[in-house]
Amino acid sequence: MTMLEIIGKKKYGQELTKEEIAFFAEAAAEKTVPDYQLAALLMAIRLNGMTDRETTDLTLAMRDSGDIADLSAIPGIKVDKHSTGGVGDTTTLVLAPLVAACGAPVAKMSGRGLGHTGGTLDKLESIPGLSVTLSVEDFVRQVKEIGVAVIGQTGRLAPADKTLYGLRDVTSTVDSLPLIVSSILSKKLAAGSDAIVLDVKTGSGAIMRTLEDSLKLAESMVRVGELAGKPIVALVSSMDQPLGTHVGNALEVKEAIDILAGRAGGDLLEVSLTLGGFMLHLAGRAETPEAGQQMMKQAIASGAGLEKMKQMIAAQGGDPSVCDDVTRLPRAKVIRPVSCGVSGWVTKMDTMALGMAAQAMGAGRLTMEDRLDYSVGYVLQVRIGDRVEPDTPLCVLHARSEADADRAEAAIRSAIIFGREHCGRAQNFHAVVTKDGVRRLGAGS
Amino acid sequence: MTMLEIIGKKKYGQELTKEEIAFFAEAAAEKTVPDYQLAALLMAIRLNGMTDRETTDLTLAMRDSGDIADLSAIPGIKVDKHSTGGVGDTTTLVLAPLVAACGAPVAKMSGRGLGHTGGTLDKLESIPGLSVTLSVEDFVRQVKEIGVAVIGQTGRLAPADKTLYGLRDVTSTVDSLPLIVSSILSKKLAAGSDAIVLDVKTGSGAIMRTLEDSLKLAESMVRVGELAGKPIVALVSSMDQPLGTHVGNALEVKEAIDILAGRAGGDLLEVSLTLGGFMLHLAGRAETPEAGQQMMKQAIASGAGLEKMKQMIAAQGGDPSVCDDVTRLPRAKVIRPVSCGVSGWVTKMDTMALGMAAQAMGAGRLTMEDRLDYSVGYVLQVRIGDRVEPDTPLCVLHARSEADADRAEAAIRSAIIFGREHCGRAQNFHAVVTKDGVRRLGAGS
Repeated sequence: MTMLEIIGKKKYGQELTKEEIAFFAEAAAEKTVPDYQLAALLMAIRLNGMTDRETTDLTLAMRDSGDIADLSAIPGIKVDKHSTGGVGDTTTLVLAPLVAACGAPVAKMSGRGLGHTGGTLDKLESIPGLSVTLSVEDFVRQVKEIGVAVIGQTGRLAPADKTLYGLRDVTSTVDSLPLIVSSILSKKLAAGSDAIVLDVKTGSGAIMRTLEDSLKLAESMVRVGELAGKPIVALVSSMDQPLGTHVGNALEVKEAIDILAGRAGGDLLEVSLTLGGFMLHLAGRAETPEAGQQMMKQAIASGAGLEKMKQMIAAQGGDPSVCDDVTRLPRAKVIRPVSCGVSGWVTKMDTMALGMAAQAMGAGRLTMEDRLDYSVGYVLQVRIGDRVEPDTPLCVLHARSEADADRAEAAIRSAIIFGREHCGRAQNFHAVVTKDGVRRLGAGS
Repeated sequence: MTMLEIIGKKKYGQELTKEEIAFFAEAAAEKTVPDYQLAALLMAIRLNGMTDRETTDLTLAMRDSGDIADLSAIPGIKVDKHSTGGVGDTTTLVLAPLVAACGAPVAKMSGRGLGHTGGTLDKLESIPGLSVTLSVEDFVRQVKEIGVAVIGQTGRLAPADKTLYGLRDVTSTVDSLPLIVSSILSKKLAAGSDAIVLDVKTGSGAIMRTLEDSLKLAESMVRVGELAGKPIVALVSSMDQPLGTHVGNALEVKEAIDILAGRAGGDLLEVSLTLGGFMLHLAGRAETPEAGQQMMKQAIASGAGLEKMKQMIAAQGGDPSVCDDVTRLPRAKVIRPVSCGVSGWVTKMDTMALGMAAQAMGAGRLTMEDRLDYSVGYVLQVRIGDRVEPDTPLCVLHARSEADADRAEAAIRSAIIFGREHCGRAQNFHAVVTKDGVRRLGAGS
């Protein structure tokens, strides 16, 4: 078996065997074949596709290319959650403490932000003192003791994916269904959980911009999870506007705390409750996902969710008093309220552009080497479907300088479209995909 | 403009602009983009194709990526000839002296053999003392003085093709029509001739195995030549069996000399006369290609062709007496006649396997670093359509050892199929392609 033969087969649209897939996944992990051969294969896969069987074999081969986290010392069913990435999407910081407060262990490895999307690790690090770097032993101990830990990837998880992901980024092969599915699931499977809830984003700020493509991705992930022996539930949710009202690292932590404290609600709460409900159901803690949502609402009302958040922050070396006084989070120099300036309805948002606006303010990265300013970002005060007048508040900018605020204001204004016609509210969820099929959700559900 | 954008466009099947093509061709020549990006682009081109306009722009960009040989000091119309490569294909050594003897200058840069196909330079170097390494000045001077020179590529011709060809070889992207066309024509155009006669091989020993694919290649080359402003005539000829009877470097030189001396004929002579007739016609030396063939036949009969061969060998430092005494060429240690051993008709040959048999004897290379034994090879004594009996001679092996001869005998026997039914002769030419279209040729033409 040679790399050249494998490239040739995929070039002709043939199905690769399990052995051939294992061969190139291991070669990618160990860097024993040249990048140009992997690049040619990635493009052949991008253009000729893979069957579910091939995608599953690639997922498992990439999982097996490195360490697999052993979470068996943690009692109970461990349910992981993954989002394909969005703007103002702070669900992990809301649902992790709530799900843990409801009795299901949450042992979560998260990622950093890149491009227009934020990352949970960056948000957490905006809390003074908090560390996301734990050994596997400390990670497992923390989950056993307090029921929740959110940390960075530990050990050498899925090194084949690391090589292939790096190459995809520079060879225009990111947008390949089998490559997306195997990249996400190989890491999630290596992270050691028993079941996974996926949040597949769709719309202007998502990898998959159309509902059709997002559904395909969700269905493929569920099928591959099934073939790999891990139950997966995938929700397809909207990224037609930022999910939360707050965009920026410390600002998103503030919004999560506001929600856990019962002071805030909206779409971020709804999506967090929905995802968390499925997690509690898969973990065997709730009869139905809806029952799980009720348990989480009670954890907010009782203060148990916020208390769990404090415990987690303290366990990871952070200052838990931010939960009682959000002004202890990093604050930007320039804070500027901006009003709409027009009459009409908010009809559309370019979520990608809104994410890039925050990135340009210093909240995000263009390359993995960029340093972040945790304090900057903005709070959006309108949502699609809102009726506005010229003096209706549009947003509050948190910027490093007046010049930065000027640029952000212009970018945000041009990313939000106001119309003269009445426009309905956007729905948060479009579909739930399980091994039993796709259930489409109507507007308002 | 970035490499990533260019890859992305071709991935989506879009047409690249002249500027985008020039960008990556120059980057390939100067090695300013990583190989993995070129590899991804090559696979995208292999799978999504290129228009004639794109192929022409790529050809010209690769031509312009290095030196362009200036042959203007040589009076007259310089016509080059190129074959896509075959087994026992010694047409250059037959037609170059004949065309030159008929008054058209032949300034030819040739290549080396690789895999199952031989190379003109290797054959020439089997003549004691002969050098194929000349400066451009010496090359031009020799053609001006004696009308003919056949040398290796000089200067830095089409370095973009060098990079891309090397990558295609290891990324399974050799079999792409636009990449084959641009690779061949960029080098031919950089070699400075005014018109080109192409011999596109078809059959079991050719890049293109089916007539349909070979015709597509021929038509594409003629169209691109037209767009690039160089008249091209492409002949599609058979590689269903070795063209000449002799396979191996010194053996093929011997066959060429035998033909120039009027002692031998057959398919190699017919194909050489046909290609040479077109060359003389394009050079303005013959009214029609057929008239050109008549002139070449007279050059054989008068001895002018053999005399020109002697002049060329002498001018390039070789021993011209090989033309009078072919036993002065390198001779193998073991010379073994082999007979057919069966009764029937020769119905089919696996030309690729026959080429690889010669390669395994030491006549060819698997990698460009392999060293050759000029003396080895074989003389095939049957052709498709021949009626044979068990004692009919099959071939004469010229080997380094008895063991080598045993292996070659087995390989040759299994590459030739004998049948019980009468089988017709194979035709040499299938079609002539010019800017005016495709003219199919019937059997026996």
